[in-house]
Amino acid sequence: MASLTFWFEFASTYSYPAAHRIEALAAAAGVEVIWRPFQLGPLLHAQQGMTDSPFNVVPVKGTYMWRDMHRVCGELGLPLQAPSRFPRNGFHAARIVLADKTPGWAATFTKAVYAANFAGDLEISEPEVLHGLISALGADPDTVLALANSDTTKAELKANTAEAAERGLFGSPSFTTPDGELFWGNDRLEQAIAWAAQTQSR
Amino acid sequence: MASLTFWFEFASTYSYPAAHRIEALAAAAGVEVIWRPFQLGPLLHAQQGMTDSPFNVVPVKGTYMWRDMHRVCGELGLPLQAPSRFPRNGFHAARIVLADKTPGWAATFTKAVYAANFAGDLEISEPEVLHGLISALGADPDTVLALANSDTTKAELKANTAEAAERGLFGSPSFTTPDGELFWGNDRLEQAIAWAAQTQSR
Repeated sequence: MASLTFWFEFASTYSYPAAHRIEALAAAAGVEVIWRPFQLGPLLHAQQGMTDSPFNVVPVKGTYMWRDMHRVCGELGLPLQAPSRFPRNGFHAARIVLADKTPGWAATFTKAVYAANFAGDLEISEPEVLHGLISALGADPDTVLALANSDTTKAELKANTAEAAERGLFGSPSFTTPDGELFWGNDRLEQAIAWAAQTQSR
Repeated sequence: MASLTFWFEFASTYSYPAAHRIEALAAAAGVEVIWRPFQLGPLLHAQQGMTDSPFNVVPVKGTYMWRDMHRVCGELGLPLQAPSRFPRNGFHAARIVLADKTPGWAATFTKAVYAANFAGDLEISEPEVLHGLISALGADPDTVLALANSDTTKAELKANTAEAAERGLFGSPSFTTPDGELFWGNDRLEQAIAWAAQTQSR
């Protein structure tokens, strides 16, 4: 089956609509989605010397982004509330995505975290919030959180971030295909899926 | 008639496919296009402290952009050759856009300059190249160049750049509607046109 890797950082705004859209679009094209959280912060620091979101570092971009996000989410009927704190640290949440290997967990939990941050204005870096999100999805928070804090999971997230850098990523969402093609941005999701589907059929 | 203002800087890569696409899309939606060249350099410097293209300042973004441009232009059947010098200074060309007020001149000359830079690898900052482009379009180079160097035209380009900054622009291509909405990027062209058409019909 054709596959597409979806690289995402929880602090990223445009990754929220991308996470919302990717499953239906990929399924319609017969493409399997591989969900891979990574940490964008280290890449922004290494590549651009940034220690904050580009949307905070360059305010005129931030103003535009929030207006554009309202338009983008509005068209999708996706609730959006600009969070009272931005960006929020998503590394705990990223580890939880990786902790549970049950099919469907990564997609379900990822969408819940994005909604919590960008529609619910919840502090996704706090253990209590994450505990509640895991619980609401019917999983056992203590078990999942223990796995999330294991050395194996920590190493997996670090490896994802290192591989993201090696593959030339510089933002989220990004998409890569098995033949090495890179696409950046919610706007490129359709093209990325089409590329993945075509590559498989060649 | 509904209208959309198209803001562009000649050094901008993604403005090349946008300039190629905008007329047909706007005509189909009954939207008039107002072509307004501006200088992005002063905005990048004031907003981000940059003195070079972001695609040179952040090489990982540049590598991605050229690959993406090949995909974008490939889909459009638009010739693309990464120029041997990037970015090229487009302020002379921008003045020439403004110099001749004949209907259609701005669109025709603008497309010729983008093609010269990004398909023909010509040095669009050089008077001889610009002379040739004007001549090829059937206009009189000496007359047009004299107008381009007039105080009126110089002031008009400066005013465009100042207004671009006031409107919150930070990149090219950008699009603004009469009700003050801002859209950034070739990817937003369709939405910008739809917005302009809807605003008019309200």
